[in-house]
Amino acid sequence: MSALAAQDFDAWQAGALSRTEAALDRFVPAEAPAGLGAVMRYAVLDGGKRLRPLLVLAANEAVGGQAEAAVRAACAVELIHAYSLVHDDMPCMDNDVLRRGKPTVHVKFGQAAALLGGDALQALAFELLTPGDASVPDSIQALHCRLLARAAGGEGMAGGQAIDLAAVGQQLDEAQLRQMHRLKTGALLQASVMMGAACGPGSAQALAALNDYGWAIGLAFQVIDDILDVTGDAATLGKTAGKDAASGKPTYVSALGMDESLAYARRLHDQAQAALAQSGLANTAALSALAQRVIARNT
Amino acid sequence: MSALAAQDFDAWQAGALSRTEAALDRFVPAEAPAGLGAVMRYAVLDGGKRLRPLLVLAANEAVGGQAEAAVRAACAVELIHAYSLVHDDMPCMDNDVLRRGKPTVHVKFGQAAALLGGDALQALAFELLTPGDASVPDSIQALHCRLLARAAGGEGMAGGQAIDLAAVGQQLDEAQLRQMHRLKTGALLQASVMMGAACGPGSAQALAALNDYGWAIGLAFQVIDDILDVTGDAATLGKTAGKDAASGKPTYVSALGMDESLAYARRLHDQAQAALAQSGLANTAALSALAQRVIARNT
Repeated sequence: MSALAAQDFDAWQAGALSRTEAALDRFVPAEAPAGLGAVMRYAVLDGGKRLRPLLVLAANEAVGGQAEAAVRAACAVELIHAYSLVHDDMPCMDNDVLRRGKPTVHVKFGQAAALLGGDALQALAFELLTPGDASVPDSIQALHCRLLARAAGGEGMAGGQAIDLAAVGQQLDEAQLRQMHRLKTGALLQASVMMGAACGPGSAQALAALNDYGWAIGLAFQVIDDILDVTGDAATLGKTAGKDAASGKPTYVSALGMDESLAYARRLHDQAQAALAQSGLANTAALSALAQRVIARNT
Repeated sequence: MSALAAQDFDAWQAGALSRTEAALDRFVPAEAPAGLGAVMRYAVLDGGKRLRPLLVLAANEAVGGQAEAAVRAACAVELIHAYSLVHDDMPCMDNDVLRRGKPTVHVKFGQAAALLGGDALQALAFELLTPGDASVPDSIQALHCRLLARAAGGEGMAGGQAIDLAAVGQQLDEAQLRQMHRLKTGALLQASVMMGAACGPGSAQALAALNDYGWAIGLAFQVIDDILDVTGDAATLGKTAGKDAASGKPTYVSALGMDESLAYARRLHDQAQAALAQSGLANTAALSALAQRVIARNT
């Protein structure tokens, strides 16, 4: 694993974010009918940490993969993430009015538009993965769709949301909590890594290591999320803080306590770094730095 | 175009439906967590005309395509159709309580479950199209995902829904009405035909003809739908009749009158049959019979 100075990572990240924003701006159409394009663009553009796209692009760098396939995958995972936020914020789910410091989509455009806009974003994700111009090989298109569909569906993100809803007011043990978070957040983060890895050649050893890396940072992300729900404030987070505790949702902090939650996040970080070291890949500096950022983040 | 006696078509249809139901039963998992599997199965199994799967399988027969790819595509389009019904029925959209003679999903399971179940069904559609076991060539997997994503998204079904919502209480001219229906219903019906055609070899001439066929029956289906909204009854339809007129939605009947709407549906049927005749394909009997059923249907 090569070392990457903080300023080098900042420069890499700035370039990756710039490519991602430009691609999202190009790919999310303003022209979708009856105002749907405006809803979709509001939900996706001008906000968000873009962690998932960064993971795709960093994993693609690690395997020396194909740039066009990677940027499409980066946008696709972000569209899935964005649609899930739009639907989660709706009154029948979390009923949130603030997201990234702005009114949520249903507050701004109405519930029907939020429902349809989210649905259209999910479809658009798969459309981005399957360009008809031969710029991405069929084998990568098929693998990308397979990874994303599994991570988004009933055995992934949507299933995790269902567990989350059913868990309000329940006491979950650590295994149940881990399963909930692995599906709800971890599956898509892990898929981001594997979709980046799918853009190029990778040995079985490298893919297994990246899969382990993705698993560990996916879970670490959610542990930190639970910690920030307690320690963060709305202005920094851009969303309502203390919401999970107030609504009786089980969290790592409520299950393990604050100190043990922090220690657990650090152990997961170390696991992620160890996986990179075992990958046999030379160019994992950006993935390593992203793992550090996941732990050190305050938003 | 070969002729197919009514009883031969009935036998073909019975076989195709039986394969579709068995595949849906196998593919829609009961195990999805926190009751989500039960929601998904309720939304998909034991109901529906399965017109879209029948179109996939009939088009696959016409080109002599691959059976495994076709049955997966048949199920995938039906899952997209099913999820759209679940979301459309929700209170923030059409607020329907009856579907296929049963309580709608949100009435039975609650709105959050309906939202998540629909989302998971959309993801599952793309998962079915991309098996990891090499049973379907990557080129077909990629093309299937491309066709389905475009038909389902903002420039397809979801876009048509947005126009539909915006059109309540508006007068649309025939071109606007046609655009709304082409997206809302026609795009997925047309995609069903083209996904079936994608399972095997097809000349450019054959594909262009099947595309024309799909366009014509997609629109004819919706014209008949508008007619049935006036002439049908809830017991036969399995859903609330007269709903469009009551809610001020523009329909073909309100735009053209009943007689001209019927004549238009017949002209579209004739266009569909003419396209089959021009396809150069020998085995279009099932597609021809399905076009007749679309016009003659009373549910």
